[in-house]
Amino acid sequence: MTSTRERILDTALALFNRHGERRVTTNHIAAELAISPGNLYYHFRNKTEIVSELFRRYEARVEAFLQVPVGRALTWQDKVAYLEAILQNMWQARFFHRELGHLLDADEHLRRRYADFARRSLDQGLQVYCGLRHAGLLEATDEELESLLVNTWVLIASWTGFVHALVPGERLDEELDRTLLRQGIYQIICLEAPYLRGEALEHLDTMKDAYRQGSHSTLELLFE
Amino acid sequence: MTSTRERILDTALALFNRHGERRVTTNHIAAELAISPGNLYYHFRNKTEIVSELFRRYEARVEAFLQVPVGRALTWQDKVAYLEAILQNMWQARFFHRELGHLLDADEHLRRRYADFARRSLDQGLQVYCGLRHAGLLEATDEELESLLVNTWVLIASWTGFVHALVPGERLDEELDRTLLRQGIYQIICLEAPYLRGEALEHLDTMKDAYRQGSHSTLELLFE
Repeated sequence: MTSTRERILDTALALFNRHGERRVTTNHIAAELAISPGNLYYHFRNKTEIVSELFRRYEARVEAFLQVPVGRALTWQDKVAYLEAILQNMWQARFFHRELGHLLDADEHLRRRYADFARRSLDQGLQVYCGLRHAGLLEATDEELESLLVNTWVLIASWTGFVHALVPGERLDEELDRTLLRQGIYQIICLEAPYLRGEALEHLDTMKDAYRQGSHSTLELLFE
Repeated sequence: MTSTRERILDTALALFNRHGERRVTTNHIAAELAISPGNLYYHFRNKTEIVSELFRRYEARVEAFLQVPVGRALTWQDKVAYLEAILQNMWQARFFHRELGHLLDADEHLRRRYADFARRSLDQGLQVYCGLRHAGLLEATDEELESLLVNTWVLIASWTGFVHALVPGERLDEELDRTLLRQGIYQIICLEAPYLRGEALEHLDTMKDAYRQGSHSTLELLFE
């Protein structure tokens, strides 16, 4: 049975993702769970602690998938699995990316943890890109690989904010939000496309088709 | 002689860029100008009106430079001029990009104007990319051109936020802020690099060298 602590975290995450972290109070979370505010405070002193713990979960998930398998070369299916993991994590923690600047401004400790997380993840990401290059799925100089990595990171971290800046809230229901997030993965594929080789290049159109919304371009989806 | 209205706008912009829009009140602006709050209110009813007018200036500048010259083909020097204009505008309105989500959440009217501005700018940007392609400086399919445009836009709009999320405030003085902004232009050049042809490709290293901070990679600058 799920503990109250875990249920608070799951419920807070769902509410933050749906309404934005700023619009949700600890009272909203307690009410949604039908527990008393006192019971919630027993587990978390305030919303900052809840956000902090949700970030820890997110961090652990990213660290777990952003690994190069030991003892075998990477394949194009690994490449797809990385993209899929990025998508799932962007979706699950979309409140976090949407309000990153605000959340970091509100919590100096979280800011330091986020910078550490970014440094580690960028380092792991570079290992993955090197692994793809080693497997002949990517061709790029060290300089190209590093600039590609930074651009991919900025795209992943900023995509949700980009969408929310351009699509009015009343149009952005959960379905469109999910469609546009998949379109963000398509944009990452386009970023990497010029460097793909071998099997990865052969499957470029397959990968694009899997994430692009039909024949619609990103701009059409945003401004329809 | 500069009008009081213009002086208020210039001073507000300088303070917003230095301290962040949220930390600056209309009283701070009046004090910096050595005018009474009443005098300021005569020109602007509140900070929202000041932000709105600063955005109008920014919009006008972007619209002015993001044009394809009539009656002649684009050159690689035009390409450099676009990059330089992007840099200047990112620098001048850096408070805006740093706190975009917050500013749009606080002002529904600004949100609509920003979406219109993005739509028009992306349209103009596509014309510029088509012009570069027409001049033989870029080779890309329509699909590649549009995804490149979206990725460039996200990079420009998100770069300042990316830097501020990763570099602690006490390390980020004006000099490092400016260095990292130039590094953002280098990242845009890297984004476009695989598609460059002719004169633009011949000058790729020149363009990179003009914006990159020596031999330092972006990650070294961020996490040194």
